[in-house]
Amino acid sequence: MVHNHRDEMDSIGTWAVPVDALYGIQTARALDNFNLSDVRLKDFPEIVVALVMVKKAAALANAELGAISVRASAAIVAACNEIIAGRHHDAFAVDMIQGGAGTSTNMNANEVIANLAALTLGRRPGDYRDIHPNDTVNRSQSTNDVYPTAMRLAVLSQCAPLVTALEGLCRSFDRKAVVFSGIRKVGRTQLQDAVPITLGEEFAAFSAAIRNDIRRLTQISEVLREVNLGGTAVGTGVNAPRGYQALAVSKLSAIFGTPLTAHADLLAASYDQGAFVTYSGILKRVAVKLSKISNDLRLLSSGPLAGIGEIRLPPVQAGSSIMPGKVNPVIPEAVNQVAYEVIGRDVTVTMAAEAGQLQLNAMEPVMVYSILQSTRLLTRAVRMLDEKCVAGIEADRGRCAELLDKSMAMAASLVPVIGYDKAARAAKLALAQGISLREAVLREGFPQTSELEELLPAPIGKPVLQPLDQS
Amino acid sequence: MVHNHRDEMDSIGTWAVPVDALYGIQTARALDNFNLSDVRLKDFPEIVVALVMVKKAAALANAELGAISVRASAAIVAACNEIIAGRHHDAFAVDMIQGGAGTSTNMNANEVIANLAALTLGRRPGDYRDIHPNDTVNRSQSTNDVYPTAMRLAVLSQCAPLVTALEGLCRSFDRKAVVFSGIRKVGRTQLQDAVPITLGEEFAAFSAAIRNDIRRLTQISEVLREVNLGGTAVGTGVNAPRGYQALAVSKLSAIFGTPLTAHADLLAASYDQGAFVTYSGILKRVAVKLSKISNDLRLLSSGPLAGIGEIRLPPVQAGSSIMPGKVNPVIPEAVNQVAYEVIGRDVTVTMAAEAGQLQLNAMEPVMVYSILQSTRLLTRAVRMLDEKCVAGIEADRGRCAELLDKSMAMAASLVPVIGYDKAARAAKLALAQGISLREAVLREGFPQTSELEELLPAPIGKPVLQPLDQS
Amino acid sequence: MVHNHRDEMDSIGTWAVPVDALYGIQTARALDNFNLSDVRLKDFPEIVVALVMVKKAAALANAELGAISVRASAAIVAACNEIIAGRHHDAFAVDMIQGGAGTSTNMNANEVIANLAALTLGRRPGDYRDIHPNDTVNRSQSTNDVYPTAMRLAVLSQCAPLVTALEGLCRSFDRKAVVFSGIRKVGRTQLQDAVPITLGEEFAAFSAAIRNDIRRLTQISEVLREVNLGGTAVGTGVNAPRGYQALAVSKLSAIFGTPLTAHADLLAASYDQGAFVTYSGILKRVAVKLSKISNDLRLLSSGPLAGIGEIRLPPVQAGSSIMPGKVNPVIPEAVNQVAYEVIGRDVTVTMAAEAGQLQLNAMEPVMVYSILQSTRLLTRAVRMLDEKCVAGIEADRGRCAELLDKSMAMAASLVPVIGYDKAARAAKLALAQGISLREAVLREGFPQTSELEELLPAPIGKPVLQPLDQS
Amino acid sequence: MVHNHRDEMDSIGTWAVPVDALYGIQTARALDNFNLSDVRLKDFPEIVVALVMVKKAAALANAELGAISVRASAAIVAACNEIIAGRHHDAFAVDMIQGGAGTSTNMNANEVIANLAALTLGRRPGDYRDIHPNDTVNRSQSTNDVYPTAMRLAVLSQCAPLVTALEGLCRSFDRKAVVFSGIRKVGRTQLQDAVPITLGEEFAAFSAAIRNDIRRLTQISEVLREVNLGGTAVGTGVNAPRGYQALAVSKLSAIFGTPLTAHADLLAASYDQGAFVTYSGILKRVAVKLSKISNDLRLLSSGPLAGIGEIRLPPVQAGSSIMPGKVNPVIPEAVNQVAYEVIGRDVTVTMAAEAGQLQLNAMEPVMVYSILQSTRLLTRAVRMLDEKCVAGIEADRGRCAELLDKSMAMAASLVPVIGYDKAARAAKLALAQGISLREAVLREGFPQTSELEELLPAPIGKPVLQPLDQS
Repeated sequence: MVHNHRDEMDSIGTWAVPVDALYGIQTARALDNFNLSDVRLKDFPEIVVALVMVKKAAALANAELGAISVRASAAIVAACNEIIAGRHHDAFAVDMIQGGAGTSTNMNANEVIANLAALTLGRRPGDYRDIHPNDTVNRSQSTNDVYPTAMRLAVLSQCAPLVTALEGLCRSFDRKAVVFSGIRKVGRTQLQDAVPITLGEEFAAFSAAIRNDIRRLTQISEVLREVNLGGTAVGTGVNAPRGYQALAVSKLSAIFGTPLTAHADLLAASYDQGAFVTYSGILKRVAVKLSKISNDLRLLSSGPLAGIGEIRLPPVQAGSSIMPGKVNPVIPEAVNQVAYEVIGRDVTVTMAAEAGQLQLNAMEPVMVYSILQSTRLLTRAVRMLDEKCVAGIEADRGRCAELLDKSMAMAASLVPVIGYDKAARAAKLALAQGISLREAVLREGFPQTSELEELLPAPIGKPVLQPLDQS
Repeated sequence: MVHNHRDEMDSIGTWAVPVDALYGIQTARALDNFNLSDVRLKDFPEIVVALVMVKKAAALANAELGAISVRASAAIVAACNEIIAGRHHDAFAVDMIQGGAGTSTNMNANEVIANLAALTLGRRPGDYRDIHPNDTVNRSQSTNDVYPTAMRLAVLSQCAPLVTALEGLCRSFDRKAVVFSGIRKVGRTQLQDAVPITLGEEFAAFSAAIRNDIRRLTQISEVLREVNLGGTAVGTGVNAPRGYQALAVSKLSAIFGTPLTAHADLLAASYDQGAFVTYSGILKRVAVKLSKISNDLRLLSSGPLAGIGEIRLPPVQAGSSIMPGKVNPVIPEAVNQVAYEVIGRDVTVTMAAEAGQLQLNAMEPVMVYSILQSTRLLTRAVRMLDEKCVAGIEADRGRCAELLDKSMAMAASLVPVIGYDKAARAAKLALAQGISLREAVLREGFPQTSELEELLPAPIGKPVLQPLDQS
Repeated sequence: MVHNHRDEMDSIGTWAVPVDALYGIQTARALDNFNLSDVRLKDFPEIVVALVMVKKAAALANAELGAISVRASAAIVAACNEIIAGRHHDAFAVDMIQGGAGTSTNMNANEVIANLAALTLGRRPGDYRDIHPNDTVNRSQSTNDVYPTAMRLAVLSQCAPLVTALEGLCRSFDRKAVVFSGIRKVGRTQLQDAVPITLGEEFAAFSAAIRNDIRRLTQISEVLREVNLGGTAVGTGVNAPRGYQALAVSKLSAIFGTPLTAHADLLAASYDQGAFVTYSGILKRVAVKLSKISNDLRLLSSGPLAGIGEIRLPPVQAGSSIMPGKVNPVIPEAVNQVAYEVIGRDVTVTMAAEAGQLQLNAMEPVMVYSILQSTRLLTRAVRMLDEKCVAGIEADRGRCAELLDKSMAMAASLVPVIGYDKAARAAKLALAQGISLREAVLREGFPQTSELEELLPAPIGKPVLQPLDQS
Repeated sequence: MVHNHRDEMDSIGTWAVPVDALYGIQTARALDNFNLSDVRLKDFPEIVVALVMVKKAAALANAELGAISVRASAAIVAACNEIIAGRHHDAFAVDMIQGGAGTSTNMNANEVIANLAALTLGRRPGDYRDIHPNDTVNRSQSTNDVYPTAMRLAVLSQCAPLVTALEGLCRSFDRKAVVFSGIRKVGRTQLQDAVPITLGEEFAAFSAAIRNDIRRLTQISEVLREVNLGGTAVGTGVNAPRGYQALAVSKLSAIFGTPLTAHADLLAASYDQGAFVTYSGILKRVAVKLSKISNDLRLLSSGPLAGIGEIRLPPVQAGSSIMPGKVNPVIPEAVNQVAYEVIGRDVTVTMAAEAGQLQLNAMEPVMVYSILQSTRLLTRAVRMLDEKCVAGIEADRGRCAELLDKSMAMAASLVPVIGYDKAARAAKLALAQGISLREAVLREGFPQTSELEELLPAPIGKPVLQPLDQS
């Protein structure tokens, strides 16, 4: 024990830190305090990288404004670059759920960077004489501006892969839409046979619906570009030198590679989690859409013989431990479950946002964790749905035709010709007698006009009705 | 104005109250302050009656303990009896959503009772010399014990009709279960054809599932019988005479007609809304079950021709403004929507319960409103589902047989005979070739044993497979 | 009975409709079927007006394309104009929660318009020979395009008053921010004394935070301008003449007075409720913000003597039925409760959106009801908060100064001067010994520099610390 | 590749399984299909053990009924015993979120047990001739009865540690209640000074409130003892021998060590997730209570100088990266965040329960995952709150006295003596003039009775008011 630990001290007391640990006493206390979720900062590399980018931007701005020495800044920047390049992530070990509005996360970064810089300058971990975690690395900063800023960047970083995955799914639906474009089938509203559509239209609509979501997701992710860096403790910029805010945000924009803007009212920005609430809401919208589409895929492939059975999902595993040959829609079912988790997490984000008090919201960690976890689950679920399911869907052309043929789906088309009431009477008769709609129309004595002939042709060798010319 | 109003005064100032109003200044202020939900106390007669029962119990206990005069008590009790009998409810006009932990509701009752009693004693409304809303009617009480107690009673009152409605629904399902008991059909798991069941079993299971809910609902409603009456402001019983708590609870039990018990720790009871959270949770469970069953009814009646179509819901309205003859499952759809509202309201109750602070939860009004509204919606939805839908459901016996016949539902039964792997091979072959399972089994060269013959009999004049003898 | 009713007939059978009713058989059936929420279409005039605007646009487009006669169109338009002007709303009596994806709502409008038009043309209610609810009024339409379109317009109509109310609240906060601009006080993070701010800054931040919400609300309400009118039953435009979609949307834009756009993919648009999910999400964001601000107002006014007590809310009613002189923050408490309801309703909207199946979402009615109810509650709550609370808030300047004076709020400012570790030691000493921070700094032996003197001046006649020069 | 894998085959095709893997092809497919949550079966040892207990019970029952050989049963039981003892858990590698209603989980167990048994019998992994995963291990079972049964047992297993942790927390609050029993202070309702209580009463009430939750949690966990084992695929018991259900449940009771009962209606039991909904609801109740108590601890310790400051939480880490000496309530804050996650997960459970269709609920995996994760988070959070916070809380006796002394908390006690209206006038005067309540009462000219003297004694050497004798 004596040999394997170094003693570090803070205002509360002394703590034994593993001798080679890149983190220090504040991180060690946090590791001891919070052992809740089994998920750690390093499990979201986006967080580690975003946080360290903020530290790098601050070091550059601090040096430029004379708040820290050029030598200290250079050492900090070098340390940050290593971490951004993917090294030392294991030292970011704090639990994602933590009290303190992210102070433990911020101090974890301050300490790792200070120790890496110390090593650069020939000192040993724990020797903060040159580079102090608070006085140097955290200079001109507070958890209360660093953490919200970094978390917005982390969420933004994660957004792009989700969009890419969604676009891939849309392309798969589009490809199927082309292949299925000639397959006429029953359109259904309220699970009741409605009017004819094509399977291609149905798949194109899946794509179109998701593209709407992509558009909103992209649009709304913009709200995350507004950061409160420079506000320090409560938004008044206490302890930051004049000019720091603009400079730090500009440095960070360059490092992150995306233009960021400074909040106009930094006091409000210090506690206002509206951006996260809105972003979580748009993730929920994506989840709702994916769940709806998964439900549809399960309905359309139901059966295979005693259900709708218009499409077949690729079999990816034996469906049942007891029913041989059964193949279940396990991929869409997994997507549904991810959607329910994302929807639940939106409630978590909402409650956490509501719990802000006065100049800060201490509940940011669970918000960030929930949003990052939701985004990751969605991204993986979308890729799974795309690759393991949609890409391999096959249509049962014969089944589509058979169901359309026997349905009353053409009844609506009669309305402009014979009126709603008469068309309803014919449909009712057809259904009651088990005869075709054409037969019923004739039995009701409606004149066999050419228009009627076109809508409901005689079934001589034409099991499937002809396509309508629809506007 | 001069003639139509009377001036009342409180520590804040003077307010003009309509001259004949049975309520007084505190109610008038509340009417002015809260104009939010358009739903008023009187819209829930259970609240008015429960609240006034508490006032009556308090008056009896106060008189017995010498805290108020026998004459005052008698006047109060007489006033209460009129209200319990259903009169003067219009004077309970405060908005269901109100700040102040129910103070406005409690004062509304205090004032109406005081004025009714005043009239009895030959005084005019607003003359509180004999019977003061606070000093006499509210004697030994605080909103903080009266309101939670009364609200528990109101919720309990509403529980019985919901249970009655649910039992009625169960009986309807039971009746259908008997009628449908001989109808064999495909059982489905994950929307895929599974093994044979009867439609009667399916409907009996609806009933059984709801009966489980009734049992839990009844069990959990017991938690509402524990009341904090006598705790007054914060649970210390400040201002109540010795012996008041036990006596008041005993009086209230007699008036309400159900044994109530006093909380062991009145401080905790003053703010602990766990009973409401639990009760709301069980309402949510009922909603989830009803929504699931409604989904099933919609699935089973889907089509009528291009879906499952095993049952037919009674048509209660033309289904579509454009598609003639279409009949939609509008009743189950309305039940689904009620369920979503109840589930949403459970989140409202949860957040309100979480927002309690120190010695009180000020957010009780929205909890009570949400629970009462959920219960009422559920009760009406259950009756609607019962009367407008379940009672009139018809089975399509031929469709059930047809789907069972062509499905692979017998494959599972083969497992004990030929093993899982071989049964799976046969099922796959049957599906791929469009042949019967029996045919596939024979083609695969499995011996035509008597056991096999029993499970998959030759189809000579037997379109439907024989019932299994199932343990 | 014989004299007071007229018989109407549909494909299901005959129904007795009140003889003078402007509605017809479909509405009458809906009134009988759905008796759930006690809230009816007419309770949201926005719905009635929006729906009828759609009908008017359709009639104009139909006439222009020759689908209905000019005479019929004129009669329909005249009827619509009366309703838009606010007449006949009582005939819109269907329950807001209804099965059937809004068919009952659409038919209610079709029937009222048909009957009003019939009256114009000299016929009696129920005589649909000239103007048929389905064949004429609903021509080229389906519930599935009319209802979603009209509901988007209704929600848009309701958005403006909410924005106006929020802007009013911002102005009240702004006014207070000016009045309170010179009042220095403790800023608090995590309920712990942090660094100095002014009460003016705190109130300005309330305004800024709400203005962020207004911006997002306005931005996101744009998504509602995209409508699926012309898609008819499932988005294929079945039964609508060529050119109808563009023309009808253009007419509707003119009538509604706001440019609307047609969805690119009408199949997707028929079931995609993403716009409502997103809009409900932004209402939730507003609710979260209002709840947070209400919590803050309650915290800042806590006491009055044994809490923070930096501000005083105007007393609007006696706070307690048992504690004389107590004044409670009832207005913010009511806002909290409204916020919880709005948050719960967002879950309802989410579940309803997820429940869409295939070509339609049948659960729109509860979505629309929830969104309209949430918007109305928020609008009223915001006005109440503004007028009954914020406008009358007073600052306790002495209390602000007293608390700032004895707090450690200046400790952060010492960091750039003496470093984090030493500043922490001084703060700890001050707290433990009950001495001032200045005294502790001196006792710790830190040199009494001019910089220190400026930050922590000697307390001669200066009870309040000087303002910092903040960047 | 050739050497490191073995080929296994199912009805879908061939798959290369790692040569020494204890799992087989179905597990391997599931590992490939589901890569979502990063949380695997083995991360919840309760699941692995519960599942294998079910398998053991089934093997014993099967042998007794002659459905499998005694030799096979013995080999299966031996394999199960090893796993129950904690070995081979790494082979349970399937993702907690998975499609297929738990089939992958069930097959994972079937395969691991079959391979362990094969090793016992001298065969190699993948050689299923003696012990087949489906035909032998899964004999008389289906995922649809095994999985729900095992998951109920897993949740029950996890309940005990949560109860233990909660009881520990209650004991800590009880200990503090004793220590703090003499400390009189202001009781607060709606954050406003109300009436006197003691700090001991306040802490005893925390304990009492949690004990209520423990009682409900224990009571409701009983619902999980009802299992559907023996129902097989859809509740009809297809493929299970006569007498199997009762025997298997009895064996399982003995193995699990707790009496279990068989559902009366196994069809309903196959899809009815009401027990999980109810149990999740009670977890939510616990979360709500813990969050409320955490909020209170944060309020009571607010300050330390510019807030309430009646108690001091033990400092467990430096509170701020910028504000030296600041110590934040990080432990309660972490509890709040756990509570928000649990509340969100209840929505997930609700949606998953609602999504059951016909004879099964395919969404069980996310329900089980959410409930187990919530329980684990709560258990850890409760222990953390107990050990890192409550155990070390100290009272600031002087602060309690000071705040009580200057508050109006005695005003309520005056009501029985001088009436509500006069007491209100005195309180208002005292507040406005900054004088004591006693002084105000005298100035208002109320007679200085002995009763008054007892309630509001002259302040000679008695800074704190005397205890009330409270009923």
